[in-house]
Order: sequence, then structure tokens, then C-alpha cells
Amino acid sequence: MRAVTISDGELAWATRPDPVPGDTELLVAVRAAGLNAADLLQRRGRYPAPPGVPADIPGLELAGEVVATGARVSRFAPGDAVMALVGGGAQAELAVVDERVAMPVPDGMGWAEAGGFPEAFCTAHDALFRQCGLQLGERVLVTGAAGGVGTAAVQLAAAAGARPVASARNPAAHGILLELGAASAAEPGDALGEGPFDVVVELVGASSLPGVLGALATGARVAVVGVGTGARIELDLLALMARRAAVSGATLRARSVDEKGAVVAAVTRSVLPLAAAGRVRVPLAATVGMDAAPDAYEQFAAGGKIGKIVLVGP
Amino acid sequence: MRAVTISDGELAWATRPDPVPGDTELLVAVRAAGLNAADLLQRRGRYPAPPGVPADIPGLELAGEVVATGARVSRFAPGDAVMALVGGGAQAELAVVDERVAMPVPDGMGWAEAGGFPEAFCTAHDALFRQCGLQLGERVLVTGAAGGVGTAAVQLAAAAGARPVASARNPAAHGILLELGAASAAEPGDALGEGPFDVVVELVGASSLPGVLGALATGARVAVVGVGTGARIELDLLALMARRAAVSGATLRARSVDEKGAVVAAVTRSVLPLAAAGRVRVPLAATVGMDAAPDAYEQFAAGGKIGKIVLVGP
Repeated sequence: MRAVTISDGELAWATRPDPVPGDTELLVAVRAAGLNAADLLQRRGRYPAPPGVPADIPGLELAGEVVATGARVSRFAPGDAVMALVGGGAQAELAVVDERVAMPVPDGMGWAEAGGFPEAFCTAHDALFRQCGLQLGERVLVTGAAGGVGTAAVQLAAAAGARPVASARNPAAHGILLELGAASAAEPGDALGEGPFDVVVELVGASSLPGVLGALATGARVAVVGVGTGARIELDLLALMARRAAVSGATLRARSVDEKGAVVAAVTRSVLPLAAAGRVRVPLAATVGMDAAPDAYEQFAAGGKIGKIVLVGP
Repeated sequence: MRAVTISDGELAWATRPDPVPGDTELLVAVRAAGLNAADLLQRRGRYPAPPGVPADIPGLELAGEVVATGARVSRFAPGDAVMALVGGGAQAELAVVDERVAMPVPDGMGWAEAGGFPEAFCTAHDALFRQCGLQLGERVLVTGAAGGVGTAAVQLAAAAGARPVASARNPAAHGILLELGAASAAEPGDALGEGPFDVVVELVGASSLPGVLGALATGARVAVVGVGTGARIELDLLALMARRAAVSGATLRARSVDEKGAVVAAVTRSVLPLAAAGRVRVPLAATVGMDAAPDAYEQFAAGGKIGKIVLVGP
């Protein structure tokens, strides 16, 4: 097969041996694979692949057709359209995925959208519901809301009956964020003015979090998922105590297949029906051929995108 | 009545008008009232009493006999022995407490222990169970474990089937902490070496927390309840994300009567039976007459105490 490969920071479209599915795995002919900040970090040598994953093929999510299954696979069969959350290796013609981290592609969802769905929606779901325990009617702030996880978080918060405020530096994103269900969409300073917030999905990092911590309601929960602007902040513990607030952080990639499977199961149960009904979608900033991966990585690094950049198969 | 009063940082044993119970309140003849760090802060003008509480009479917890009840009180009657969590005003001959924040004194518990029970056990219970969701078998670290909240947290964690490690600078406290159920008791550096920890009750603050954050298990929860050594820390968000950890903070005092009542109800249900069975207790560092409050405050400020300092009625 051919795959996007990383060698000394250089991307190539190179030939690699076809992967072979284990007992509980699916072999998938990849049709689309979303790009994530983690891929750019990995290219720069700062986010090595976890054990058990191809070390030199990036990609944390994919969609495609099942072409073979391991002996103990029970939920999928050859010909099925699946999407999956993986620890790496997605940006290739073929990938193996454990069936626990695979989901059926909902009716009506195209390949590119499906390839950009798993990482964004699993991350947003884990942040809003597992980390923050989002409740009906709560006031949510999503910072850096224009990207994949941000647009997913806004849609999930709205679907759950919360009131999402979307913060995005790029004014061109505000209209789309309102369409996706944001109660308001504004530049960061103005968005903070709409607080206090019960739940915050922090996708920006050090440049954003101090302001966020000043705009919390009593009992607030902050999930830190992105730290593109830096990862070190000064935390005032007395302010945290006075607000009875909690700050948590999480990444998906390092989790075991079982743990990823638990997130995928929750998303399968609660989000796929919304996707099938057209109530949540994956906004696409761009689709780029896998053999032109360097262009896609450059677009991602340039910033300002609205929604996902997805690599599509040849 | 007479009461401990604060005026310009000076403590006195002075006369004040008798308080009058409202419809849902008990008038309590106070027999004992525990001392807390908040009282010392209040004396220094740094922790003013919340609205609805005597502004110049300190004291967040008390035990005594009900001498009168408001028209709508349903759970207590004159003559009952109660202990209560209040927002202030406990260090006096008489206090009014809403019945929602009152608990019966368990059989076999003396007045001094009862007067030092509510704040310590409600704080520790809120930290371990509401904030951190402590589970059977988890590894718990309690920093600054020799004080009232610390000894309560060690006992509650042990009672819940967790494995509490007690961190205390004062080696004289280690033996008692082991008696109270600590799996081990050690000075801070050695205690950290027993990690990683699933749950941490942080009672020390800025000098302790950076070390604690380096000793967390995946999925750890840290509840910050005391910040005597400072309240500002540098937080590494990537480390928090890599550990999937959460840091929360809380105080009890600022909460509404309803919210305090929820904590008291939880403690009544889950801790009072343990106290009645002698499985948890309130270690007493000292009992001091209310009319000698300045001595008690000085002892508290000097540090090194093991358990609670409790003011007892005249």
C-alpha cells in the first residue's frame, strides 16, 4: 500500500507493507482521514506514536470500507462503511482498526465528513460529558471554536440543551458557528463578556485560560483539550476554591483500545443518531488528496480554517 | 449572651444580644465550637463573614443543646444534642442554626469532639466524595494530614476501602495517623514516593502542590482545600492532559444553607453511623475555654497540632 509517511520531519507518499488485521481487527480501505494538530506535532517529532501503532504513518481518524476481518470480529463485515478513532496510521490506503474503536458511517454522511468525524466528536464528547458532566441548560464556552473539535463541541452542547457561546478570533467563522447552534459567536474578549460559564471547552491554551478562569460560575468545570498557544499558566487556587471550580485535561491518543472503545461506544450511542438525522455535521475547511499531504499540513499550520481539513484517498 | 468577638483584629469575650431563631432555625446553647484556619483569617480581616451571619463572632462549627425551635422546625426538639456547620457565629454561648445544617450528636461522642466534627468531616467528605468521586481501592494522598480536615480525610478514605497515605511534616503525628487508618504516614517527600495517587486532598497549598502534580496516576483528581503556604502555582496543562487529571477547589463557608444542608445530609447518612460505631473520631489537640479564646488562636497559629483545637463553653 501507499501511505503518508514522516521521516525526519519530511512528509512523503511512500510504499509500505500492507497491514494485517489481528483477531479483533478490521482491515479498512481508507477513503478519508482527518488532519489534527497532533499530526503536525508528530511531524515535528514532538508527539511520537504510542506503542502498537505505525511509528511513521500519521493520522488519528479515518473512514473507509471494511475489506477483511479478524477471526473474532463480531460487529462488522466486509463491505461495511466504517469510521474509526485510532492511535496513528490512518493516513494510508489501508489501515487496521480494532472493532471496538470503529463506528458505522451514518446514512447520508459522505466519506470526507466521516473521515473527519471520529477525533473531533470523540474529543468534544469526552470533554463535555465525561470530564465536565454537562447538564441541560448550562452555559458553555468553547474557545477556539472554529476548528474540528470546536465545531463539534458547539453542536453537541446545543443538542444537549445547553447554551454554547463560541469564541473564535476569525470573524468569518462566527456565522457558521451560529448556524451550528451557538447561542452567540464572538471574538475572545466579547465572548468572555457573555459569562459566567458553567462549562468551558478550552481549545486555545495559555493565552486564553487566564481570562476563562475569571469568567466562571460557581461549580464550573473547565476541560483543557488544546494548548496551541502554550501550556503553562499561573493558577490562583483561592479563586478556584471560591468558585468551587475544577480544571481537567485529557488527550485521547494515549488511551488503550479499551478506553478509546468506551468513548467510541458513548459517541455511537448518543451522537450517531444525531448525525443520521442531520442535526450534527462535520464542516469541511478543505479536502486534499493523500498524495498532496504536505499541502494539507501547510493549510492546517496556517490557521484560520473553519472546520476540518480531511485527506481523501486516491 | 457572651461571645468571642473580633474587633480590629483583637479577640474579646464580650456581651452581645441573644440571637432569636427564625422559623426553620434552632437556638442552641453552645457547649463546644471548633477552631479553623478560617477563624484566624477572619481575625486578620482577610475572610469576612458571609451575609446573614454575625459579622464579628467567629466560628464555623458547634455542638450544644437545643433550647428553642422555630415554628417550622421538624427534625429537632428542645433538649436534643446537636452539632452544626454554620457560616459564622459559633464561638458564643448561644447560636442559631438552620435545622438543615444540624446533625444529632452520635452516641458516645463527647461535646468537645462533637464541636470539632462538622467542619472537618464535611470538608473532607465533600473533597473525597463529591469533588473526587473516590472509589473502593483507590490510592489517596492527604497532605497536611495532621490537622482536623486531614485526620478526617484519612479516616473517611480508609472507611471507604481506599488506601490513604498521610503526609505530615511533624513526625509526632505519624503514629496517630497510622492508628486512624493511614496505610502509611510520612514526611512530604517520602509520602510522594508512595505514589502514584488516584485522589489527593491538598491541605497545604503552593509549597506542596507542584510535587503532588508530579505524583498522579492516570485519571487522578486533586481537591484543593487548604492553601496555608500560598495560593499561586504554575500549572503545566500538558502534564494535566497527559495524566487525564483534574484539579478542583472548594470552600464550604460561602455556600447557601441549602448547599451546606446537602453536605450535612450526606455526612449524616454516611459518616454518623461510623462515628456511632467508633470507627471515626475527632482527635483533640487541645480544649480551651471560650473566655480564653486568644490562647486557642495562638496555639492554632503556632502550628504542629495534631487534630482539632476546640473552644468549650463556660
